[in-house]
Amino acid sequence: MYRTHTCGELRQSDVGKKVTLAGWVQTTREFGPITFLDLRDRYGITQLNFGGAINARLKDEHLGREFVLQAQGTVIERSNKNPGLSTGEIEISIEDFKVLNKSAVPPFTIQDDTDGGDDLRMKYRYLDLRRNAVRKNLELRYAVGRAARNYLHGQGFMDIETPFLIKSTPEGARDFVVPSRMNPGEFYALPQSPQTFKQLLMVSGYDRYYQIVKCFRDEDLRADRQPEFTQIDCEMAFVEQEDILHMFEGMIKHIFREVKGIEITEKVERTTFDQAMWHYGNDKPDIRFALPIANLKTPASVYPIQRAKALKDDTSGILNAFQTGTGFPVFDDAETVVAIAAPGLSEYTRKQLDELTEWVKRPQIGMKGLAYIKCNADGTYKSSFDKFFPETELKKLAEYAGAKPGDLVLVLAGPEERTRKAMSELRLEVGNRQGLRKKDEFKLLWVLDFPLFEYSEEDNRWVARHHPFTAPKPEQISVMIDNDPTIPDPTAYLQHPYASVKANAYDMVLNGNEIGGGSIRIFQRELQEKMFAALGMSPEEALHKFGFLLGAFEYGAPPHGGIAFGFDRLCSIMGGSESIRDFIAFPKNNSGRDVMIDAPGTIDLKQLDELQIATKAPVK
Amino acid sequence: MYRTHTCGELRQSDVGKKVTLAGWVQTTREFGPITFLDLRDRYGITQLNFGGAINARLKDEHLGREFVLQAQGTVIERSNKNPGLSTGEIEISIEDFKVLNKSAVPPFTIQDDTDGGDDLRMKYRYLDLRRNAVRKNLELRYAVGRAARNYLHGQGFMDIETPFLIKSTPEGARDFVVPSRMNPGEFYALPQSPQTFKQLLMVSGYDRYYQIVKCFRDEDLRADRQPEFTQIDCEMAFVEQEDILHMFEGMIKHIFREVKGIEITEKVERTTFDQAMWHYGNDKPDIRFALPIANLKTPASVYPIQRAKALKDDTSGILNAFQTGTGFPVFDDAETVVAIAAPGLSEYTRKQLDELTEWVKRPQIGMKGLAYIKCNADGTYKSSFDKFFPETELKKLAEYAGAKPGDLVLVLAGPEERTRKAMSELRLEVGNRQGLRKKDEFKLLWVLDFPLFEYSEEDNRWVARHHPFTAPKPEQISVMIDNDPTIPDPTAYLQHPYASVKANAYDMVLNGNEIGGGSIRIFQRELQEKMFAALGMSPEEALHKFGFLLGAFEYGAPPHGGIAFGFDRLCSIMGGSESIRDFIAFPKNNSGRDVMIDAPGTIDLKQLDELQIATKAPVK
Repeated sequence: MYRTHTCGELRQSDVGKKVTLAGWVQTTREFGPITFLDLRDRYGITQLNFGGAINARLKDEHLGREFVLQAQGTVIERSNKNPGLSTGEIEISIEDFKVLNKSAVPPFTIQDDTDGGDDLRMKYRYLDLRRNAVRKNLELRYAVGRAARNYLHGQGFMDIETPFLIKSTPEGARDFVVPSRMNPGEFYALPQSPQTFKQLLMVSGYDRYYQIVKCFRDEDLRADRQPEFTQIDCEMAFVEQEDILHMFEGMIKHIFREVKGIEITEKVERTTFDQAMWHYGNDKPDIRFALPIANLKTPASVYPIQRAKALKDDTSGILNAFQTGTGFPVFDDAETVVAIAAPGLSEYTRKQLDELTEWVKRPQIGMKGLAYIKCNADGTYKSSFDKFFPETELKKLAEYAGAKPGDLVLVLAGPEERTRKAMSELRLEVGNRQGLRKKDEFKLLWVLDFPLFEYSEEDNRWVARHHPFTAPKPEQISVMIDNDPTIPDPTAYLQHPYASVKANAYDMVLNGNEIGGGSIRIFQRELQEKMFAALGMSPEEALHKFGFLLGAFEYGAPPHGGIAFGFDRLCSIMGGSESIRDFIAFPKNNSGRDVMIDAPGTIDLKQLDELQIATKAPVK
Repeated sequence: MYRTHTCGELRQSDVGKKVTLAGWVQTTREFGPITFLDLRDRYGITQLNFGGAINARLKDEHLGREFVLQAQGTVIERSNKNPGLSTGEIEISIEDFKVLNKSAVPPFTIQDDTDGGDDLRMKYRYLDLRRNAVRKNLELRYAVGRAARNYLHGQGFMDIETPFLIKSTPEGARDFVVPSRMNPGEFYALPQSPQTFKQLLMVSGYDRYYQIVKCFRDEDLRADRQPEFTQIDCEMAFVEQEDILHMFEGMIKHIFREVKGIEITEKVERTTFDQAMWHYGNDKPDIRFALPIANLKTPASVYPIQRAKALKDDTSGILNAFQTGTGFPVFDDAETVVAIAAPGLSEYTRKQLDELTEWVKRPQIGMKGLAYIKCNADGTYKSSFDKFFPETELKKLAEYAGAKPGDLVLVLAGPEERTRKAMSELRLEVGNRQGLRKKDEFKLLWVLDFPLFEYSEEDNRWVARHHPFTAPKPEQISVMIDNDPTIPDPTAYLQHPYASVKANAYDMVLNGNEIGGGSIRIFQRELQEKMFAALGMSPEEALHKFGFLLGAFEYGAPPHGGIAFGFDRLCSIMGGSESIRDFIAFPKNNSGRDVMIDAPGTIDLKQLDELQIATKAPVK
């Protein structure tokens, strides 16, 4: 061993000990005949004191930053202690040393606030990983993984590895494929998730399975997606939805307790997909702050239950006014009118309001404008649509939106889907501006009762919202079995019985991010076949792609369900970061490249020939 | 939850409890008005007692094997207890039940001695996994993995994930490649191991890294190889070889203690590569039994130290006789003559001896014949080469081989490499025949000081025996730096200074199987470049393939080393099995196929087009 102690270990009580340390040169400071050298490793920094002849020797070596040094000496008490450093009470009076390796001048400095831009840091990722900030992220990641494993072990789960070289079943995202040399013309696919394998394990009787496992999706990478990512993948047999919610609520609480020392005592809040959309315009609402949407006008076809209740409950008559006509064409012509009451923003200036209007008009949001009501502190109201709404009506509207004096009511009007989405974004933006989204506050939420299907206009068929293995609510199984999934009239797809089937599916949301999602699965062959048919697969196609699963369902498949957590995402949110990249040791960039190792790359013609494939890409 | 207890949980103390169980029907036995049903899950079997009306209802359901059943009732004491079953003291008097799913008649019975052949069991792997024998293997695997993690965690190791989509660097085995859609004409490779990434992590200061990780090799599959396999992959910085041996000896001992309750107190034995080859003809000798090779005649060029010592130590003169000529042409014409003393086999019949002779003449062994000396119990000697050896010489030879009265000395003669290998095989065969290789005995061994290089006749260059990142012995670094690696005279390659360079490399051997291997790594750019040159890489090629690593070595790379354990192999040996397949949930067959899911398979033309590749394989 090149060292007796790490650079984060020695204390006052070690004074007098002969020690050997090894690490990287962080800084050197010369004070006449003495040189102080801060030696760094992943455990901390220890000050080395070079005096006399040894200092002369040190100077001869011309040590720079990041040189690797081994040094021996005696622990002594420091004259001026550094309380900011865990080793700050001592230093090492150096008696001998050896340069283990030199270092060129790093392209950026290894410190918390580095001068390296993103591109440089990615190219020299091995240096970036030396920085405290990145190291803490990876340590957090390790701690989260370990806490998850320990919890699941305690609950009787078994880690079982599933294969990486599987079969391509293009359903959902695009597969990465791997040409098979031993089976020319054939390809493996890398798994998008171990979904079917974990279901087979349930059929096999391994009633509590988990795996922390890499998954692969060949998608066009959005800002914060990676072609390879990691899931905490779990499945249980002989369970109902409630059992799974309970089990994994427990897991997340355990992780927070072990990793961050945060005790979440209350039960995780729950909402349904419809309620989440109605109140927040979003199926993964950030509930660290309230600011619910006031639904002033909505089409009768969407969220009919919520709409009917709102109309029934409203005593102010304001909703009724929006249905029958307000006299303001922007509202009257719109399919949907929604509002939120931004707390304490009534003093917003003209300029600020203009700027917020521009914000909602950006193509990403896509609204035509923003209406507002200032609820002044003196109880008066001032609005961008004063002309069409008398102050009494403004007051009613503001009160319906939950505004108090001092608040600013923001109103959006337009087509249902876009307007609701825009209002969700605006709500988050107000949350950001008002500091309501605190990094160190963690709010969990279960979102339940997702629709089982989405409608594909392009193919006039159903698409699985979660995946094709998700079970409908038990009481709706017969709706699927008893009805033909084909859609005779595309314009009336909402009237098809399948449109209203809800899934036994659930998402866990943390601070507005989906960190986990899962479902109770179909375990009956007949129902699974009906599902494949609904997704437009012929019986032959279903058999070709998923024959093994349909077959397995013939031999005593138990009821089962599961969940998968996005490990990268969970870590990044727990670490208070927006970016998952900061929590992956060797991430890829937005073109799917690893710029450090320069991958992907060309391969030898010999390799291509062995695989019996040819590339049709233009030669570079 | 569909159950209150598992099928392995209830005991005498639970008598009187109302319980609900769920599981698979193992067997039903009718006794007049009562039916006994054994319900099975992965935890055990519980006997259900159906009487009266509930028995009539049961009969109406026509339950078969592997039906999934949920049943409620009261725990009662059994009249005839089954001490062979953990739940054998009780049974459940059933009050209500529900068939959760039916089962077709399984293609083989789910019991310890199944009637399913290998092919059937692989196709219906999800049913095979229900068998106790397979379940126990996977449970052992989980326990081994968990014990490894816990040990490494306790030693300050961090689990850090490395990427799966990396760069193809054809050195060693063949890579699996993955065409990149976003970078047409370019390919990722799946890692054969995380080697370079774990070394980069050392450069980054993560001085104790581990991962239990899938690796991939596109090799022609021998009997017990898998295209994807799992490693316990570890690396440490600021260590010397001794530190690594100590650390991982500790890990294996911890695993044996935790998983099998076996306390290995003695230090793991050590030998060198040369000694292992000299004494056992094998660099992974099974030392559960002694039976060392007696080297009667060997060429001067191989194992010169061992040879010189043997000649010096021999007082009998027998070795000298073999050098100068025994008069027996088979020995005199041979490059190498080696013998072992098979204990207690002197009574072997003519037939048995003929059969053993045929065994060594098989193409896999490739010898021309087998000579023997029977050391009779009465002190006389009888040999197949009596004619050329007087009894006094036979006695000397037998004694030199370590034979006692009652033993059988087996002698092989021929070219060095083949003969030594054949003797190693023969030694193992004798061990098998004599029951010296006990499944429940575990003997560990470190093999050290491997040659750094092997010679490639085909390319007249050096090949890395371990891999190109392995460091030579510290005192031999200068041999590499100071000498040109090119080999001017192929016939004299053994005289090249590189031929005698030993590596700081080590293998851990368990019962004759390499379960782990590793090395101290090169961490100096100059030495790494010299290594790449020795392997026939031009500086440009080295930079293109491994520029990131050479670059990393410029910025303060610490001394480091590591090891990787073959997880599948370790589990199979600990489980007393020859086959790693039995310890993998979803293995592939010898053609690299998963016959259950039928992978690999063809993919859509659309997928190929998106990837800008074409297959040249003949259409099927």
